[in-house]
Amino acid sequence: MNSFEFQNPTRILFGAGMADQLGEQVKSGGWKTVLLVYGGGSIKKMGLYDRVISQLQQVGAKIVELPGVEPNPRVTTVRKGIDLCREEGVDLILAVGGGSVLDAAKAVAVGVPYEGDVWDFLIRKAQIQGALPLGTVLTLSATGSEMNGNSVITNWEENLKKAFGSIHAFPKFSILDPTLTYSVPADQTVNGIVDMMSHVFEQYFSSTPDTPLQERLCESILQTVIENGEIALMEPTNYAARANIMLCGTYALNGGMISVGMQNDWATHMIEHEVSAIYDIAHAAGLAILFPNWMKYVYRERIDRFVQFAVRVWQVDPNGKSDEEIALAGIEATRAYFSRIGAPTRLADMGIGEEQLNRMATETVRFGTVGSFKPLNEQDVKAILQMSL
Amino acid sequence: MNSFEFQNPTRILFGAGMADQLGEQVKSGGWKTVLLVYGGGSIKKMGLYDRVISQLQQVGAKIVELPGVEPNPRVTTVRKGIDLCREEGVDLILAVGGGSVLDAAKAVAVGVPYEGDVWDFLIRKAQIQGALPLGTVLTLSATGSEMNGNSVITNWEENLKKAFGSIHAFPKFSILDPTLTYSVPADQTVNGIVDMMSHVFEQYFSSTPDTPLQERLCESILQTVIENGEIALMEPTNYAARANIMLCGTYALNGGMISVGMQNDWATHMIEHEVSAIYDIAHAAGLAILFPNWMKYVYRERIDRFVQFAVRVWQVDPNGKSDEEIALAGIEATRAYFSRIGAPTRLADMGIGEEQLNRMATETVRFGTVGSFKPLNEQDVKAILQMSL
Repeated sequence: MNSFEFQNPTRILFGAGMADQLGEQVKSGGWKTVLLVYGGGSIKKMGLYDRVISQLQQVGAKIVELPGVEPNPRVTTVRKGIDLCREEGVDLILAVGGGSVLDAAKAVAVGVPYEGDVWDFLIRKAQIQGALPLGTVLTLSATGSEMNGNSVITNWEENLKKAFGSIHAFPKFSILDPTLTYSVPADQTVNGIVDMMSHVFEQYFSSTPDTPLQERLCESILQTVIENGEIALMEPTNYAARANIMLCGTYALNGGMISVGMQNDWATHMIEHEVSAIYDIAHAAGLAILFPNWMKYVYRERIDRFVQFAVRVWQVDPNGKSDEEIALAGIEATRAYFSRIGAPTRLADMGIGEEQLNRMATETVRFGTVGSFKPLNEQDVKAILQMSL
Repeated sequence: MNSFEFQNPTRILFGAGMADQLGEQVKSGGWKTVLLVYGGGSIKKMGLYDRVISQLQQVGAKIVELPGVEPNPRVTTVRKGIDLCREEGVDLILAVGGGSVLDAAKAVAVGVPYEGDVWDFLIRKAQIQGALPLGTVLTLSATGSEMNGNSVITNWEENLKKAFGSIHAFPKFSILDPTLTYSVPADQTVNGIVDMMSHVFEQYFSSTPDTPLQERLCESILQTVIENGEIALMEPTNYAARANIMLCGTYALNGGMISVGMQNDWATHMIEHEVSAIYDIAHAAGLAILFPNWMKYVYRERIDRFVQFAVRVWQVDPNGKSDEEIALAGIEATRAYFSRIGAPTRLADMGIGEEQLNRMATETVRFGTVGSFKPLNEQDVKAILQMSL
């Protein structure tokens, strides 16, 4: 286990009907002017918008709106939010939506007290020193953004998709109501499942020795997502399944609690960012395609971890099998699960051929090798993309 | 899963040599006058006292000392600390030691801004509204006090041992250096192992349905403690084993993260408090004796949880066994483990007979039944104590 620092100050309010606690949260924080950040309008269709507005009005808050946050949130939208906050004297940012909405709201939050352009934080030109307080009401189980300080923002002018992480960007509170995810369509439910499993993979496949607790915490989340994912897809209003998935999504990436002291990998995310930067496919679709192939490419680096993964997470029977066979059975079980729940398994499924393959590989390693489990150079990335065609 | 609120703002600094980060923590907090709280002097023997003092001096902090905190910390000592803070204008309380020292420091922290007597918080006569900031340097893996807002304080004048929990009492930072536990004697290492396992038991044996993630998180801690406990006892300076145990102790009771949305039990702790209130035995010794007997008394309430416990935590082979047999094998494995690491298994081992048995049972249920997995009345408690003789 490596040395580490860990802190996660976010207050979680979890359960059916918790959205009705919003007014109380705003009141007890003493906030007066709220920037309401949301996406394309699904929160209006589901009646959540009206509930939020009425909660805010009841506590006398002034409401400023930033609607229309994109699925891959854009820095232009973030800049608009920052301007609004400054003009209207906003003292609380409230994100109502999924990971993209939350990520955009975080970028607004850290951008307001900064004199330069918020994009500076994404390209590491400046360091985040503070933020407006942020609250969230989550409508999609996936990214874990509700309990971490991470944000991914896209800059289409420069064709760049970049991330930042900061202790200042953790939400002050996050309201997690599993019933708000009942109406999430099947494909987005699938994306959420793939997303949270991928977050765990990036932490679990690590070369750091002596981390038995962390490995088991990761396996706990994977097993629970795997079991409950299929139930939620068959029964979208099954409370227990939706609640279990929601909690898994949050714990999968809540500031690194499940992988403290472990070196993370994140190579597959970096490759996927280049795929979706060119083809604008859903992040999770790219991850579902790439991860089993990444696994096949790297498993020999530390076959014991892949054997453990196969046996503990997928209940592969190790009897009479070589380590190689066990490890490969676990990888195949991962691919088969993604396929079974309806995620794509090949780039061809998304209409992607080898035309841009070299460009994606080159961009992925622009700043050097990616990943730590097996550091990948351009040839490695190209090979994984080739396997994924 | 029940609805829940969860927040844990404590910053953790974990790893070998982390005690040398203390000065930086104090400096960055802007604190000037520190109340140094510690116990019987073991921190002087191990050289930690000098390191702490030198760190504090380097950042120019004024140091006020509260030494001599008892293994079962007394409210009289807490009151002394509160007086010192007020007289000297203390703005940071720094606890260096194990759970008792941390618990005493928390009580001082919440007592300073309160006009009445701190004992009011323990008997629920007043509610905690604030606290002085608290930092900790942990020297013993056991209670989890380093990352929660709980404190247990004893009042010998009234023969009462009571607990409080408050979000205000979470440490601002806790330094967890596994090498500081190298010199912990075997019996205290055993007590720590029993203590953290017992904390998980109180959460894991729950009648709340649909909590698969939380159950697995609990099992993850139990399995890791079980494996590493014996290693740490055989090789007291094995870093990996000490680090794994330390992390398990912290996660076992860090504000309820592993059991969010689950009703907890805590009956065994309440029975044990009455045993140690009369006989002044180590808390963990009482728990090691009582827990397997509590399990035997209650397992039929929800045999599936005990079957799962036996199979997943103790690898009991379920083939050809009835649920009853599997459950009992798991309970016996627990008892055998405690015995193997050197914990007592009968009250007789501690020289306790049936003389005070009725009194202990009566005191345990003074405010009604205890526990939730199976609510225990006086007869139940008496039966469990009888089984433990």
